[in-house]
Amino acid sequence: MKDYLVKHPWKIIEDSFHKEYNRITESLCSLGNGMIGQRGNFEEYYSGETLQGNYIAGIYYPDKTRVGWWKNGYPEYFAKVLNSADWTNIDIYFGTTRLDLNEATILDFHRELDMRSGILSRKVSFQIGDVKATIQSERFCHYGNKDTALLKYKLTIDEYEGPINIQSCVDFNVRNQDSNYDENFWDYHCQHVDDDWGHVFCKTKKTEFKVCAGIKNSFTINKSVEAEYSKVEKERKVGHQIDLQVSSGDTIQLIKHAAITSEYHHGDVRLTDQCKQLLEVSDALGYEKAKQLHIEAWHIKWEEGDIKIEGDVAAQQGIRFNIFHLHQTYTGEDSRLNIGPKGFTGEKYGGSTYWDTEAYCLPFYLSTSKPEVARNLLVYRHNHLQKAIANAEKLGFDNGAALYPMVTMNGEECHNEWEITFEEIHRNGAIAYAIYDYINHTGDEAYLEEYGIDVLVGIARFWSQRVSWSEQKKKYVLLGVTGPNEYENNVNNNWYTNYIARWCLQYTIQVYHRLDSDTRVKVDVQKEELEKWRHISQHMYFPFDEERQIYLQQDGFLDKEIEPVSLLAKDIQPLNQHWSWDRILRSCYIKQADVLQGFYFFEDEFSEDELRRHFDFYEPLTVHESSLSPCLHAILASSLGKEDKAYELYLRTSRLDLDDYNNDTEDGLHITSMAGTWMTVTKGFGGMRVRNGKMSFKPTCPKQWNSCAFKIAFKDQNLEVNMNNTHFEITHSGRQDIEVEVNSVKKKIEANSTQIWDIA
Amino acid sequence: MKDYLVKHPWKIIEDSFHKEYNRITESLCSLGNGMIGQRGNFEEYYSGETLQGNYIAGIYYPDKTRVGWWKNGYPEYFAKVLNSADWTNIDIYFGTTRLDLNEATILDFHRELDMRSGILSRKVSFQIGDVKATIQSERFCHYGNKDTALLKYKLTIDEYEGPINIQSCVDFNVRNQDSNYDENFWDYHCQHVDDDWGHVFCKTKKTEFKVCAGIKNSFTINKSVEAEYSKVEKERKVGHQIDLQVSSGDTIQLIKHAAITSEYHHGDVRLTDQCKQLLEVSDALGYEKAKQLHIEAWHIKWEEGDIKIEGDVAAQQGIRFNIFHLHQTYTGEDSRLNIGPKGFTGEKYGGSTYWDTEAYCLPFYLSTSKPEVARNLLVYRHNHLQKAIANAEKLGFDNGAALYPMVTMNGEECHNEWEITFEEIHRNGAIAYAIYDYINHTGDEAYLEEYGIDVLVGIARFWSQRVSWSEQKKKYVLLGVTGPNEYENNVNNNWYTNYIARWCLQYTIQVYHRLDSDTRVKVDVQKEELEKWRHISQHMYFPFDEERQIYLQQDGFLDKEIEPVSLLAKDIQPLNQHWSWDRILRSCYIKQADVLQGFYFFEDEFSEDELRRHFDFYEPLTVHESSLSPCLHAILASSLGKEDKAYELYLRTSRLDLDDYNNDTEDGLHITSMAGTWMTVTKGFGGMRVRNGKMSFKPTCPKQWNSCAFKIAFKDQNLEVNMNNTHFEITHSGRQDIEVEVNSVKKKIEANSTQIWDIA
Repeated sequence: MKDYLVKHPWKIIEDSFHKEYNRITESLCSLGNGMIGQRGNFEEYYSGETLQGNYIAGIYYPDKTRVGWWKNGYPEYFAKVLNSADWTNIDIYFGTTRLDLNEATILDFHRELDMRSGILSRKVSFQIGDVKATIQSERFCHYGNKDTALLKYKLTIDEYEGPINIQSCVDFNVRNQDSNYDENFWDYHCQHVDDDWGHVFCKTKKTEFKVCAGIKNSFTINKSVEAEYSKVEKERKVGHQIDLQVSSGDTIQLIKHAAITSEYHHGDVRLTDQCKQLLEVSDALGYEKAKQLHIEAWHIKWEEGDIKIEGDVAAQQGIRFNIFHLHQTYTGEDSRLNIGPKGFTGEKYGGSTYWDTEAYCLPFYLSTSKPEVARNLLVYRHNHLQKAIANAEKLGFDNGAALYPMVTMNGEECHNEWEITFEEIHRNGAIAYAIYDYINHTGDEAYLEEYGIDVLVGIARFWSQRVSWSEQKKKYVLLGVTGPNEYENNVNNNWYTNYIARWCLQYTIQVYHRLDSDTRVKVDVQKEELEKWRHISQHMYFPFDEERQIYLQQDGFLDKEIEPVSLLAKDIQPLNQHWSWDRILRSCYIKQADVLQGFYFFEDEFSEDELRRHFDFYEPLTVHESSLSPCLHAILASSLGKEDKAYELYLRTSRLDLDDYNNDTEDGLHITSMAGTWMTVTKGFGGMRVRNGKMSFKPTCPKQWNSCAFKIAFKDQNLEVNMNNTHFEITHSGRQDIEVEVNSVKKKIEANSTQIWDIA
Repeated sequence: MKDYLVKHPWKIIEDSFHKEYNRITESLCSLGNGMIGQRGNFEEYYSGETLQGNYIAGIYYPDKTRVGWWKNGYPEYFAKVLNSADWTNIDIYFGTTRLDLNEATILDFHRELDMRSGILSRKVSFQIGDVKATIQSERFCHYGNKDTALLKYKLTIDEYEGPINIQSCVDFNVRNQDSNYDENFWDYHCQHVDDDWGHVFCKTKKTEFKVCAGIKNSFTINKSVEAEYSKVEKERKVGHQIDLQVSSGDTIQLIKHAAITSEYHHGDVRLTDQCKQLLEVSDALGYEKAKQLHIEAWHIKWEEGDIKIEGDVAAQQGIRFNIFHLHQTYTGEDSRLNIGPKGFTGEKYGGSTYWDTEAYCLPFYLSTSKPEVARNLLVYRHNHLQKAIANAEKLGFDNGAALYPMVTMNGEECHNEWEITFEEIHRNGAIAYAIYDYINHTGDEAYLEEYGIDVLVGIARFWSQRVSWSEQKKKYVLLGVTGPNEYENNVNNNWYTNYIARWCLQYTIQVYHRLDSDTRVKVDVQKEELEKWRHISQHMYFPFDEERQIYLQQDGFLDKEIEPVSLLAKDIQPLNQHWSWDRILRSCYIKQADVLQGFYFFEDEFSEDELRRHFDFYEPLTVHESSLSPCLHAILASSLGKEDKAYELYLRTSRLDLDDYNNDTEDGLHITSMAGTWMTVTKGFGGMRVRNGKMSFKPTCPKQWNSCAFKIAFKDQNLEVNMNNTHFEITHSGRQDIEVEVNSVKKKIEANSTQIWDIA
């Protein structure tokens, strides 16, 4: 846990320089607009701890797999998130002394990310040798014009007389720290610089993604002295510089426009021309106007989906931090894109899509964006169906069985740990569940007919081949799987996997018949197949302990020595940083919700008593060392009236990165769990549910909060919820009347009106 | 399966060049003398498929671990078997044309390894351009003077007139193909060449093993023509060359002496001086005399431990091939050395010690060598005890618990697959069992007192901490292990592991009390510890199926779909080359004996009925894709009177590499399973056992054989066994009378006499 940032409802503020945490702050201060993004690196050269990162959505590198021991079925490459051109690059020389804040004495420091406006700014005063000076910088990735980014950079000479040189470039000399063979992933194509602008054009090896990164520099000096402007042209790096004599009180300001064009996003056009044009438009608009438009775009986003928490700044800052980064990562216009685990904040893990998207992120976009956004997330998987079928074939399945990859960028599997890649197959379940979830929220049955059924059938075929018949148990079993709790590997009959496998078969049969009755089914399913699916779903095995009346996480779970986490010494946590892997595996400790993940998805199939029994058994054994864990447990705790637990876990999920709970924020943020944080407020404290096309709430506003307000988009209606410990209020700004249930009390809310429930 | 070699009782013969199998033949024709060894590479440059390999026992490189996903507890490096200087190196130029048999037309070819003499020879006639010529070569790693090796090489010009250049060097420009970072593992130290000799001196990076490789060349030409002799000095490569004009019928002969000195084997002396001295001695002796001594040393080995099979050349060739390579790999003088999985025949797998040594190799050396050899194998583990304790500490164990490494060179673990490194802990059991086995054969109780008890106590402490108490079962369980059958990973209660764990505790308690009663115990064991060990051994859980009355390989084994291997399509075997890893894991197919490994070790604790039941259940599910599997099953099949099965498996184990059963002989031979082959004959067909210090036999000579004869060293006595289907004969050449039981009929054999049993 770290606690060096100022708590503020809208801002992330570092008010003195924490060198030792610089990589963490860089992660927290990342910027993005769904298309391009970057870590909060200093613009200047910095020799200290830093992870340089500039990224472009969808652009990856297939890094050849490197494993200790090859297993049949491993993919040949891992799609790495690519570090791309650094457009912020600035170099300052006072005489021959290069500015390096790692070497300088910091006199004053303030770094601030304004989440309301999506602007990162910094003011730093420093001394280096005899020089005292101050930098003020402000930058953003434009939220409206997504291929452009802007920087305003001002250097004030506090004490110094002498020559100065400032270079502002775009630098394509970048490498991934996360690389299997220490290769440069980019091939140089061409570059050019003239008085007006400069660009470097590279393309990725193997995948041949073409990227042109261009900049336009405008320097202003506070007085009319003689300054020499000239071009900079180095290897994979171009820009402009000024040389001049300065004295105390002088200021030099730079406005820098950047444009990133790529074949992936801009099509088969001349990327350099396009890049130049974008820069000219941005320049014509001017920095302040561009900034104003950018801020307006962000204000609209906040208008649509802010969550306001009164009386608890840490909680308020946490939730906004989560919402902010979600909107920076994925904006939903492009169905080829998805929500990478680190977004634009780091290169670790690679790939852009995990089961997190369906299980954790979809609900956020379903309720805060236009329906197309959530739909695009589903279409993404439909686009990859043939590759999921090919993936399953590689593992010996046939007849159109589909196994979606554990990690992917383009539909092909790119993860390589056998116990996860081949065995963490429950991901297929979440992908089917997301279809159900989407239909349940939107009623968009047409989606099922056009796309959904294909995916469901592929997944059902997979499960029907993946189960095996146990003569011993006279039941179908699922052997050799890894459940959501990755602190167990290669187990038999993981309850959650068995449960969601059965559910997939049942739901597919149900959807198939619904479409079939209207002759709307395009996919060809044999009667025998349907029969097989039905037989499996009627004879699936579930491990159960009669004595405790609980479902077991997997066969043999009760052979473990069961001791709650509360008895574990603090200094051996997180376990994954202290215990050897085998010790973790044979312990009873749970990384993240597993049985409870099933209770969360399928809550209506269990009584509250059952939920309580399972929560009380499993949660005390859970170390929450997955970022996806605290949010889900907070929701369940909330629905069980365990207010303190729910609040504790809310803070943990919402401030996971801000407080660096897991000691890994320096590598980037945990983007997907941020959607879980959002769910904690809406589904947890709000108790929001959609059943049979109707919305309901069971509010339990934390006693630490004066009030909490959030907005929900539901079937073209916009609801604004405001709750405290005594009242629950919904303002409806849609066009149609709507019926809402709060604590089982139904009320009709007329269009553009407010209803209040007394919940004291 | 391959079948391109001539079947011969004493030789491996390739009588026409099989380019496509060159790497296989290189493996099969490897030479070694326990200290140095090499693959059967051509002396000349060869551009085709080849794996250049020269090795020195004990000299390794700690290659930095490279894994896809790091797990806590992984070792930082993997000890790689090092490719070392190539002393055979010869280069021939006809004018400007370099001889390369891959490019030449082969007119006649004969490669032959004479196992009786340990000599590799080759005769090849070829045409390259206008040149026709013949090479005859013969070489050996001296079995008496283990640091020297010799080559006789003769080139006959069949058709050619013109200049010729022949260079004979020692070449230290070698790399490992098996390297994690494509590094050169050797640093250059110095080199020198003069008219008499030349050497290159390198040392390994990190480990700083110093090696000096020297050669001495003597050329002879058939006629007195003018020839220019000169030195060759290149980077890490020195030697001599001759240039002369030749015409058809001319012959040039080279005698090359090589000496390899190393600090590891020769101590802190001037290695270059030592090397030069060895070469001078070898040269003074002369090639033919050196060869004669070498052959005599081999004849003694064969005299001591040959197995003669009459009437079955394939079987005869197979067993001698196995015995030959065992004696090439390990000679037992140096307790720092062990039996590497590939010996001197390849670089794959790395490390020099696996559990194979104790479980498979020890019995061979126990019965064919002086007792010191087997004792040295045990002392080797005692030497590593502190490192085994450190290894266990790394995984969270304490109080002197020892976990021996899965793979090692110097006592430190160097394997990194969590499911094996951390979980295949049964290796600890085999190490304890080997102590029992050694004492049982030799009666050397002093060993227990001086060394054995320390190792046993460390191992007992490990097991007592590794078990956990299952409240559910009210028994001790072993969770998260991998048994000998590596086609199951991370299972609970692997029967074999549980069984040998209990046995270790029982045996340690027993030995402790035996020594304690004579106050011979040096190691400090608390009374509570002994109580705990006893409690565990009395309450260990064993998975059992009541219906079938069989022990289950692990919990849940019967949930699998059980179908015999005989129903599997041939074209998907070996499974490990066709099925994805998860499919293998969840199948019922067994890589190698697991439950049956336990029945083999502890046969006296089970009835023949029990053995039959378990063999009939498990063997049909076994794919024998471990080289260690067929031998053990052959022994059990033999003891059950399953003659056909035993013979089939004998051929598979004895000809595993000769016929390339597993498609991997090209990487090197399976040295450790060769000891298993030897056991198949003696313990299997001979039915040899030692019980209570007495030797007994239950012979079942395969009907395909006219007779079979083998020699056994037992308690300073030498027995020669000769058996066929009707008679069993033992000739006793020792000094004391001995009592032997054959098929339960006891007879006394007087010193230097023969006894015959009628077994028709």
